[in-house]
Amino acid sequence: MNPTIKTVLVIGSGGVGSFYGGRLSKAGLEVSFLCRSDFHQVKSKGITIKSYQGDFLVTPAQVVARTEDYQGKPDLVLIATKVLAETNLVELLRPLIAPGVKLLLIQNGIEVERELANAYPNTPLLSAIAFIGVNKTGPGQIHHQLHGRLEIGAYPHGWDLELDQVMAAFEPTGLSVKHSTNIEKSRWKKLIWNAAFNPVSVLGLANTQQILTSPQSRLLLKGIMSEILAIANSRGLGLSEELIEQNIRVTEEFPPYKTSMLLDFEAHRPLEIESILGNPIRLAKESGVLVPHLETLQALLKLRVKALE
Amino acid sequence: MNPTIKTVLVIGSGGVGSFYGGRLSKAGLEVSFLCRSDFHQVKSKGITIKSYQGDFLVTPAQVVARTEDYQGKPDLVLIATKVLAETNLVELLRPLIAPGVKLLLIQNGIEVERELANAYPNTPLLSAIAFIGVNKTGPGQIHHQLHGRLEIGAYPHGWDLELDQVMAAFEPTGLSVKHSTNIEKSRWKKLIWNAAFNPVSVLGLANTQQILTSPQSRLLLKGIMSEILAIANSRGLGLSEELIEQNIRVTEEFPPYKTSMLLDFEAHRPLEIESILGNPIRLAKESGVLVPHLETLQALLKLRVKALE
Repeated sequence: MNPTIKTVLVIGSGGVGSFYGGRLSKAGLEVSFLCRSDFHQVKSKGITIKSYQGDFLVTPAQVVARTEDYQGKPDLVLIATKVLAETNLVELLRPLIAPGVKLLLIQNGIEVERELANAYPNTPLLSAIAFIGVNKTGPGQIHHQLHGRLEIGAYPHGWDLELDQVMAAFEPTGLSVKHSTNIEKSRWKKLIWNAAFNPVSVLGLANTQQILTSPQSRLLLKGIMSEILAIANSRGLGLSEELIEQNIRVTEEFPPYKTSMLLDFEAHRPLEIESILGNPIRLAKESGVLVPHLETLQALLKLRVKALE
Repeated sequence: MNPTIKTVLVIGSGGVGSFYGGRLSKAGLEVSFLCRSDFHQVKSKGITIKSYQGDFLVTPAQVVARTEDYQGKPDLVLIATKVLAETNLVELLRPLIAPGVKLLLIQNGIEVERELANAYPNTPLLSAIAFIGVNKTGPGQIHHQLHGRLEIGAYPHGWDLELDQVMAAFEPTGLSVKHSTNIEKSRWKKLIWNAAFNPVSVLGLANTQQILTSPQSRLLLKGIMSEILAIANSRGLGLSEELIEQNIRVTEEFPPYKTSMLLDFEAHRPLEIESILGNPIRLAKESGVLVPHLETLQALLKLRVKALE
C-alpha cells in the first residue's frame, strides 16, 4: 500500500511516545513532538533512545510547546500522554482537528477513548495498547528494555481504511503491529495484569517476584483479577477465567521487575489511578458487580499519593 | 476489700506495661519489671513517665532479664507484650506459674488469650483492653498522652474472685477500671476501630483525619468495620451496626493523630498483624464470612513490612 501517512505529531514525550515516534522517524516519516518540561532539551539535542535493539538518536521535524505552534497539518496525531485528571486532551487537541487528521491513542487503562470520541466524532480515532518495557530516564533520554508490540483497533468502530493506513505507517519500523478487532476487549485483557500488579506493587513496595512469593499477596492478585474479569464479563466481553493463571504464570517466568506504576511512584510522578482503577470501579457500580479489592486499592493509593505531596 | 495482691511482675516494658505497672507502683504495690533491651537503663535509672496527669518516676522492686531470675512469687503477672509470632509467652511464663499466681493480659486484638488458657488451665487468667494513648519514646521513657481506662474480664469465665482482687489492686491508682462481663465481645468492639484505622494508616501513611477526609478511604473504613461486625456476629456476639458510625464520629471529634501501628511502622518496630487481622480472617474462614477488605489489607501489610527489612 502506498503510505498516506507522512507527517506525525507525537503528544507526550514520555517513554511510549518517544519510542514509537522515534521508530517512525527512523523509518523515514516526518515526526514532530509536543514537549512541555523537556522542550529545550529536545529542541537542542533531540531524543536519545537507548534500546536493546540498538541505540539511536531522534531529531524531530518540529518541536513545539503548544499544539497551536505546530506548522502545517499532521496526517497522524499519536497521543501517548499519561491518563491524568489534570490533562485536558480535548482542549489540547482542538487546534489540530481538521479533515484528514487521524488520532492514534496509545495509553493504558480502559475508557480512555470515550471523551475524545464524543468531542470529535468525525475524526478517525484509533486506539492502541503497547506491550513494551520502556522508561524515560531523563529529559530526552529514553531506555527501551523489552518488546514493542502494538495492538491497534478502531474506536468504537468504523475506521477500517484509516486503521489500514496507520498499520501501513508502522510497517517500515519493523515493529510487530497487530490488528485488534475488539480493542475494548484487548484493553480489559491487559487491565487484568495492570489493575493487579501495579497497585499492589506500589502499596507493598514490592517487585513482581516479591508479590508472587508471598502466599497472601498471590491470592490477592487472583482476587483482583477475578473482579476485573467479572466487570468485563458483565459487559458481555466473555473473558476466560484462565487468563488469571496465565497472567500469573507469564509474570513468574520473567525476572523480578518493578511495575511502571511503582517506578512512577518512586520518582514522585503522577499515577494513572483513574484509568486503571477508577473507571473499572465506576463500570462495576453501573453493572452491580462487587469489587471490594479494587475499592480497597483505590482508597489506599489515593491516601498514599497524598502522603507524598 | 483487704487487698490480696501485693506483688506484681510486669512482662513488657513498652508504653502500656510501664504505665499500668508504674501507676500500681505509685499506689504502693511492689512492682517489678521484666525488661530485655531496656534492662540496664531501667535497672540503673528506673522508668520515667511523662503524663498529662503529672510526671512521675518508677523505681521497680526488681528488674529482671529473664522470668527465672524473679525472686519470690508474684501475686499478679501483668502481661503487656506486643502480640508477635516470635514471642513464646507460654514458655516465658512457665517459671512463674504456681498456686496463687494470677495472670492479667493487657493486649490488643482477638484470641490473644487462647494459647495461655490452654497451657495453664488452672491459673486464673484475666483479660483486659486498655483505652489509652501511651508510647515508649526511649528506653525507660514513657509518654502518656490520653486516657487510661481498663476493661477487665475473666477468660473464658470462672475467675470471679480473682477478678475482684485485680480490680481492687487497681483501686488506689485512681484509674477507671470497668468489669467486662464478656471480654470477647469487648475485644471485638475495640477491634472494629483497630482493624480499620491501624492498617489503613500504615498503607496510606495517613493520620486519622487524613483517612476520614478522603471519601474513598472513609468508605473503606466502613467496609472494613462491616466485615469485623459480620465475623463477630457470626459468632453470636450481637454487635450493633451503629458501632460503625459511632467509631467514625468519635475519631472525627479528636484532633488528627497517628495510630499506634503507624508509629510502630515508622519506628521500624514489628506490627501486630496477626492479632488484628490474621485471627479475625481465620475465624471468618471458619464461619464462611467473606472478608475481602481484611484480606487485602493483610496481604499488602505483609509485603510492606517485608520491604522494610
